[in-house]
Amino acid sequence: MKKLTHIDDTGRANMVDVGHKSQQSRSATAEGFISLNAETVKLVGENQMKKGDVLTVAEIAGIQGAKRTSELIPLCHNLLLTKVEVNCALTASGVKATCTANCIGQTGVEMEALTGVQVALLTIYDMCKAVDKSMVISNVRLTEKTKSDL
Amino acid sequence: MKKLTHIDDTGRANMVDVGHKSQQSRSATAEGFISLNAETVKLVGENQMKKGDVLTVAEIAGIQGAKRTSELIPLCHNLLLTKVEVNCALTASGVKATCTANCIGQTGVEMEALTGVQVALLTIYDMCKAVDKSMVISNVRLTEKTKSDL
Amino acid sequence: MKKLTHIDDTGRANMVDVGHKSQQSRSATAEGFISLNAETVKLVGENQMKKGDVLTVAEIAGIQGAKRTSELIPLCHNLLLTKVEVNCALTASGVKATCTANCIGQTGVEMEALTGVQVALLTIYDMCKAVDKSMVISNVRLTEKTKSDL
Amino acid sequence: MKKLTHIDDTGRANMVDVGHKSQQSRSATAEGFISLNAETVKLVGENQMKKGDVLTVAEIAGIQGAKRTSELIPLCHNLLLTKVEVNCALTASGVKATCTANCIGQTGVEMEALTGVQVALLTIYDMCKAVDKSMVISNVRLTEKTKSDL
Amino acid sequence: MKKLTHIDDTGRANMVDVGHKSQQSRSATAEGFISLNAETVKLVGENQMKKGDVLTVAEIAGIQGAKRTSELIPLCHNLLLTKVEVNCALTASGVKATCTANCIGQTGVEMEALTGVQVALLTIYDMCKAVDKSMVISNVRLTEKTKSDL
Amino acid sequence: MKKLTHIDDTGRANMVDVGHKSQQSRSATAEGFISLNAETVKLVGENQMKKGDVLTVAEIAGIQGAKRTSELIPLCHNLLLTKVEVNCALTASGVKATCTANCIGQTGVEMEALTGVQVALLTIYDMCKAVDKSMVISNVRLTEKTKSDL
Repeated sequence: MKKLTHIDDTGRANMVDVGHKSQQSRSATAEGFISLNAETVKLVGENQMKKGDVLTVAEIAGIQGAKRTSELIPLCHNLLLTKVEVNCALTASGVKATCTANCIGQTGVEMEALTGVQVALLTIYDMCKAVDKSMVISNVRLTEKTKSDL
Repeated sequence: MKKLTHIDDTGRANMVDVGHKSQQSRSATAEGFISLNAETVKLVGENQMKKGDVLTVAEIAGIQGAKRTSELIPLCHNLLLTKVEVNCALTASGVKATCTANCIGQTGVEMEALTGVQVALLTIYDMCKAVDKSMVISNVRLTEKTKSDL
Repeated sequence: MKKLTHIDDTGRANMVDVGHKSQQSRSATAEGFISLNAETVKLVGENQMKKGDVLTVAEIAGIQGAKRTSELIPLCHNLLLTKVEVNCALTASGVKATCTANCIGQTGVEMEALTGVQVALLTIYDMCKAVDKSMVISNVRLTEKTKSDL
Repeated sequence: MKKLTHIDDTGRANMVDVGHKSQQSRSATAEGFISLNAETVKLVGENQMKKGDVLTVAEIAGIQGAKRTSELIPLCHNLLLTKVEVNCALTASGVKATCTANCIGQTGVEMEALTGVQVALLTIYDMCKAVDKSMVISNVRLTEKTKSDL
Repeated sequence: MKKLTHIDDTGRANMVDVGHKSQQSRSATAEGFISLNAETVKLVGENQMKKGDVLTVAEIAGIQGAKRTSELIPLCHNLLLTKVEVNCALTASGVKATCTANCIGQTGVEMEALTGVQVALLTIYDMCKAVDKSMVISNVRLTEKTKSDL
Repeated sequence: MKKLTHIDDTGRANMVDVGHKSQQSRSATAEGFISLNAETVKLVGENQMKKGDVLTVAEIAGIQGAKRTSELIPLCHNLLLTKVEVNCALTASGVKATCTANCIGQTGVEMEALTGVQVALLTIYDMCKAVDKSMVISNVRLTEKTKSDL
């Protein structure tokens, strides 16, 4: 059984204070992969999916998802993203999604890049699920993170 | 039939990078019109609509809509609006809505002003649709856009 | 000067009660137009806009906007849309957007169809505003509304 | 009966302009209380509520609610919160919720602190309502507000 | 210090399953109070507040807030509200807010009614805070809850 | 280069019509994994993470994320979920997240289950990223999907 919480502050959820951090130009890139079977890859490549142009819808959804990261992730700070780019590239075995997010602010943008990737991959899943029952999302990770003074 | 997308980057949806732009004081004003029939104009003017005070509800909805522009328009940047004002003026043939949005930021606020107008006009439509079946929204456009250094 | 409000209930904003209405299959179609200059029409048609594929992004934004109608329009009821379709058709002088929304529920879906049109048109405005300074949105109206018993 | 509105601008809803205000480090703390009966206090303290760990869920909900203040309160400005902290402390007669919000910006954060408290208290209400029919939320107020130059 | 969580399922946050409950017509009414000083009461009554018509804005915000209850309260179910009504009544010492929410569904609407009250009261706080530094929200509670078979 | 779109309807994004489908009791379960290094696993297990109780926050975020699926995934229908459950189980090498979503409706809930998993895993990433730079999310997939007549 779980014990009484809040005897002291250890373990209490909190947003870390970024008020003392300097405004910097920040960027992060994340990627991930969704496996598709061969027939699905063919249908996506020929833009024959019933729900529409899979890669384009996924890219747009990813951009919009990245902008809403702080609503989804409880302890994320709201940021003013200066750019979001999502690229969904069809391969022989699925789609690789990459997202780069930039901001000028007091905290990093890796969660925004990762959220952009995840929402893009979920959108692909949604658009292909009528024909492909074995899709798996994998290898979602941060590939680059930079910051530089203004 | 639509061809395979993403042979190269042409046509890929993307948020333009505003990270290099300077912080400026920016303002935009937009307007639009919804036609109402004579009986509807009279009811709105006398505040006899069943759903309530049409012009006031529309103005408040417009302000709230302007604040959510970046959620609605996929490639819009999130901005910190310093002021939003929506004015719904009853005329003999309908309502003219005007919205001014201000911010200090790296990109313009014309979409926020336009979204404020559109949400105000849609709200008027909603509140009058029980009695008026011929409303048309028209002439939605930007009327002014300024920026100045801080 | 505006007088004291709420002496009685007249004019108070309220959501009308739809609890007594029967579940019906409902559909509504709305349309609207955004004027573009000739050069912009050409760029959209050739998919050369810097922000991406204008018509596709607008259609997706319109679908998503229609789903959020009750958040934007204060006195709209939340509905379970069974289908939303947005069509953005390029003409010689601009883009005509059409949206059809369906639901099975206790109230009509005309606001959802109109909101889908407006968000699609605003998205086109956003994607073309770097090259076209004279766009105007007009003729936004309901073109069809049906309901039938289940 | 309510009179015709908008004869002049008096009484029109508007977001006040904060564009001229300086960027300052701002903080606000608010608190509030929800009364629980003795049996409910015992169940919360022993973490035996069917819906889960009441205090922890309430704290997380409060943080998320504070971040969405400008969506809920029509005339609030969107802010970039640098920290939000919510503390729900169980007492012999209920739970006292405290929220501190910080930002660097042009306007104060008291509404964010108050919203954090209210959403936390509503969450406690939701999680305990199956067993306690007499809960009352009271004494919700601002306890501290500071600002300092950067 | 807080101990390791999740040794078993006790205390895990979860939405209770309402899938087995019958569709019923449900209603709930909640109320709450915000104290205002005498000068503020006078200004609200004369509609002289700088931010606009306090009672009307609060009522609209309350309706919109009630519709978003399931986004704010983590374990609340999304509902299709058939009606929401918010009434803000000015008294000699403040404003009493009342909210009634109705739905046809599988679970009660008390959280929607309470959220409508809380958002209305927070909106009043926001609109009066420039002139009143001693407002307190109190006595927020459920006053009625009914359900009946269809 | 990408060719002119919309020569015909092929490839146009659209929400499929579910209006003709019967109301059924539907359930879906999805899972996924995030790898953590040994030190991070130890810190999570001892609830020593600076941002708070990782597993609990992730479970709550997952529940809330599942409820917002139709906002994130452009062509998903809004649903009334009757239950969402998220379970984050710590293993020797990371956390396995499982989400079950139920609804009574006209379309399946697999996207809700998958979105619950993804938001939970992203939340874990966010809470551990200060101490673990090599986390990878993988094996996100549907494990069960059922429907039955009412």
